[in-house]
Amino acid sequence: MKKQSMALLADFYEFTMANGYLKNGFAKRNTYFDVFFRSIPDGGGFAIAAGLEQVIDYIENLSFTDEEIEFFRSKGIFNEEFLTYLRNFKFTGDIYAVPEGTTVFPNEPILTVKAPAIEAQLIETFVLLTLNHQSLIATKANRIVRASGGRAVMEFGSRRAQGAQGAIDGARAAYIGGAAATACTLSDMLYSVPAVGTMAHSWVQMFDSEYEAFECYCKLYPHGSTLLVDTYNTLKSGVPNAIKAFKNILIPQGITDFAIRLDSGDISYLSKRARKMLDDAGLQCCKIVASNSLDEYLIRDLMMQGAQIDSFGVGERLITSKSSPVFGGVYKLVAIENEAGEIIPKIKVSENVGKITNPHFKKLYRLYDKESGKAIADQLCVYDEVIDDSKPITIFDQNATWKTKTLTDYTARELLIPVFKGGKRVYTTPKLSEVRQYCHNQVELLWDEVKRFENPHSYYVDLSKKLWQIKRSLLEQVKT
Amino acid sequence: MKKQSMALLADFYEFTMANGYLKNGFAKRNTYFDVFFRSIPDGGGFAIAAGLEQVIDYIENLSFTDEEIEFFRSKGIFNEEFLTYLRNFKFTGDIYAVPEGTTVFPNEPILTVKAPAIEAQLIETFVLLTLNHQSLIATKANRIVRASGGRAVMEFGSRRAQGAQGAIDGARAAYIGGAAATACTLSDMLYSVPAVGTMAHSWVQMFDSEYEAFECYCKLYPHGSTLLVDTYNTLKSGVPNAIKAFKNILIPQGITDFAIRLDSGDISYLSKRARKMLDDAGLQCCKIVASNSLDEYLIRDLMMQGAQIDSFGVGERLITSKSSPVFGGVYKLVAIENEAGEIIPKIKVSENVGKITNPHFKKLYRLYDKESGKAIADQLCVYDEVIDDSKPITIFDQNATWKTKTLTDYTARELLIPVFKGGKRVYTTPKLSEVRQYCHNQVELLWDEVKRFENPHSYYVDLSKKLWQIKRSLLEQVKT
Repeated sequence: MKKQSMALLADFYEFTMANGYLKNGFAKRNTYFDVFFRSIPDGGGFAIAAGLEQVIDYIENLSFTDEEIEFFRSKGIFNEEFLTYLRNFKFTGDIYAVPEGTTVFPNEPILTVKAPAIEAQLIETFVLLTLNHQSLIATKANRIVRASGGRAVMEFGSRRAQGAQGAIDGARAAYIGGAAATACTLSDMLYSVPAVGTMAHSWVQMFDSEYEAFECYCKLYPHGSTLLVDTYNTLKSGVPNAIKAFKNILIPQGITDFAIRLDSGDISYLSKRARKMLDDAGLQCCKIVASNSLDEYLIRDLMMQGAQIDSFGVGERLITSKSSPVFGGVYKLVAIENEAGEIIPKIKVSENVGKITNPHFKKLYRLYDKESGKAIADQLCVYDEVIDDSKPITIFDQNATWKTKTLTDYTARELLIPVFKGGKRVYTTPKLSEVRQYCHNQVELLWDEVKRFENPHSYYVDLSKKLWQIKRSLLEQVKT
Repeated sequence: MKKQSMALLADFYEFTMANGYLKNGFAKRNTYFDVFFRSIPDGGGFAIAAGLEQVIDYIENLSFTDEEIEFFRSKGIFNEEFLTYLRNFKFTGDIYAVPEGTTVFPNEPILTVKAPAIEAQLIETFVLLTLNHQSLIATKANRIVRASGGRAVMEFGSRRAQGAQGAIDGARAAYIGGAAATACTLSDMLYSVPAVGTMAHSWVQMFDSEYEAFECYCKLYPHGSTLLVDTYNTLKSGVPNAIKAFKNILIPQGITDFAIRLDSGDISYLSKRARKMLDDAGLQCCKIVASNSLDEYLIRDLMMQGAQIDSFGVGERLITSKSSPVFGGVYKLVAIENEAGEIIPKIKVSENVGKITNPHFKKLYRLYDKESGKAIADQLCVYDEVIDDSKPITIFDQNATWKTKTLTDYTARELLIPVFKGGKRVYTTPKLSEVRQYCHNQVELLWDEVKRFENPHSYYVDLSKKLWQIKRSLLEQVKT
């Protein structure tokens, strides 16, 4: 496979703008961009941030080859000065971000870039696509994992993923969100997401009989054998043949960690019937895996109907987040530095009120109730503000400022942590299993009301008084 | 960027099964697998096959490195014989496929693999994910392009794509389906999909005034300048400033290829108002580009309302096929060779009748009406059958065999062409622009009834009598 640089995985306008910034002397002017999103996939109450590690790798390695520069030259619209600039490109800015696995909410920065205009612009597309993709899948996986009520969820969707990275990084993101394993072998090798899998229908069809296929498999992989029982007839042939193979091959060896997999038909009905057949045969140890067009909605219904399922294999509806396949993160200019080095807040207005940005270089605090430990609200502040959580704080809804709430017994924690400083990486990525555990802990800190699948409580993301006043004043200026 | 082999982008069970096939002496037994799909995204009447070129690249380069083999060894479940097999792996089989850009229908093979069991199994995941992803996006792009009624559609979705390949190969697939260009620079460099793009809101915000931003842009890129007019107020400031910049900078130079871009608000209303303002200013030459949450449904409505739009930038709803984000291609065993080298057809039954496979090594013919040139039906035949289109043919619906139709004045063309023979590539990939033109021609060969967005006519995919009898007989055998 040919080595592929990602430097050109950027919208063409990033380069036309960058060329213009250089020409207009903005090359060294610091700008501040926020990555944030406006709505949560599937109408959920929160999202899970993911993808930061790949963003860091990309930025650390970002440079332009001669071949890439020649490509730009061939377009005939870029200045030689800009091409020389690209030849020597190195990211020199600061980046702040929430750690992967953090629960996040609309209209708050999940990543902030402070960098010269050109640099900030050139990384936009890749940063967005990576955070959007992995946050989408981590968020979806977390929904499915919560629906499964403690049963293992395995990510089985590679073949339906939207491209190679959709499969590989998708499996990584699903693991962060709580999936226990993946079918994607490469995600195991690259990211240590445990890869699992046993057999397809083709295995069963390859043998002269279903029983022979099962027996052979049990001999080959005595531990963890999972026999696919729906190639011919689940209850009349699949389950009886599986029972026979387990009893002939595995039980005599004292092996008890085996399972059957249901992949078609009515999973609720079949699982109950299969459970009874297995139990009647004395195989209480045998687990049942289900894997047919599942998502959080169907899993919840199956659980409510008492389906006898021990773990779930989830394919296309997880790896593409089928019911809500877009995470709408945006990358918006929030401030620029003037020639004196002062930070000038910027706002993007819109006829759609929900699309008006929160201006300025900001801090993001999460406020926790000391008694329950649960998160109460997020507070956006100007970069030079500090929340002293030994003192009461009054928060208010920016769209309904008379709605206030005063907190006394709370803890405030900053969520955005430094990742790059002056182009140098200052953040050590945790191990992926740690990220997964952190994500689990983060979700535990939310009230159940925020975790509801349908019509969840809207978590508060408020502005400090100072930030709110700056925003108001910018809006007034635009109006005039 | 680290070089990344795709050899392990495969479900883990491909390797456990392959290991088992080797152990059980199936390593050299030829198997036949079909790639086909069961339903068309968005309830459409046809799909566009895409992704073959990437499948070919993958198979030509497929091998396993020492590091990858060590990874398998570390799992402790693979035989050394299998690891040696992987070390020397090279695909040796035959592959037949429909060319990229071909219109395709449910339950017919779009790719057939004839290869020893292990080889056929190891390529399953990558082949499926690549064809599924690109066919999904090509199909969606074609819908959007048809809705736009001849206006150019530009693919703008990289930032919302599901991973890097989702953006890069997605732009390629969109181009095959008829998109005119992409924002993804890398797709231009790799695949010659024309990359376009001008400015983001950040460009406008970076300057002290909107007019200054526009003037500067027109000076920099006098040809094809597209000014984004909704940063502050589209009609009160954006359009008037754009008109001023065009008149001050471009018109005096005799330049007339410029445009404005609408990216928020009501596109129908704003485009009509903007058109009038431009015309009143004598700028009839100025084009209007629209780009806010578009897809085939909204574009069709905008056209019906007389929106004044010359071209469309389509983002997330194209690059993820948002309203239908999964192309459900499957990879099913249809035949195996016995020790005597005879081809034994295989079938996968299911409680769901629609999931029963069409067995055997097959040929796929498309039958065209000689008078109109339009495609009438596809006919699946056993590999050794030949349709002689100088003689009448009677086709019938396999689910309602009394429904027959006799064709007399028709042409029959085979759709599956040899791509690999004995592991050697025998197919030269056409240029991407040729694939795009071929796709356009393919769609022209369909009746309008098949192209309807809502509830289209179901195109006929029939079985030859011989194939139908084999299928019936296999189903009878399973029942007993």
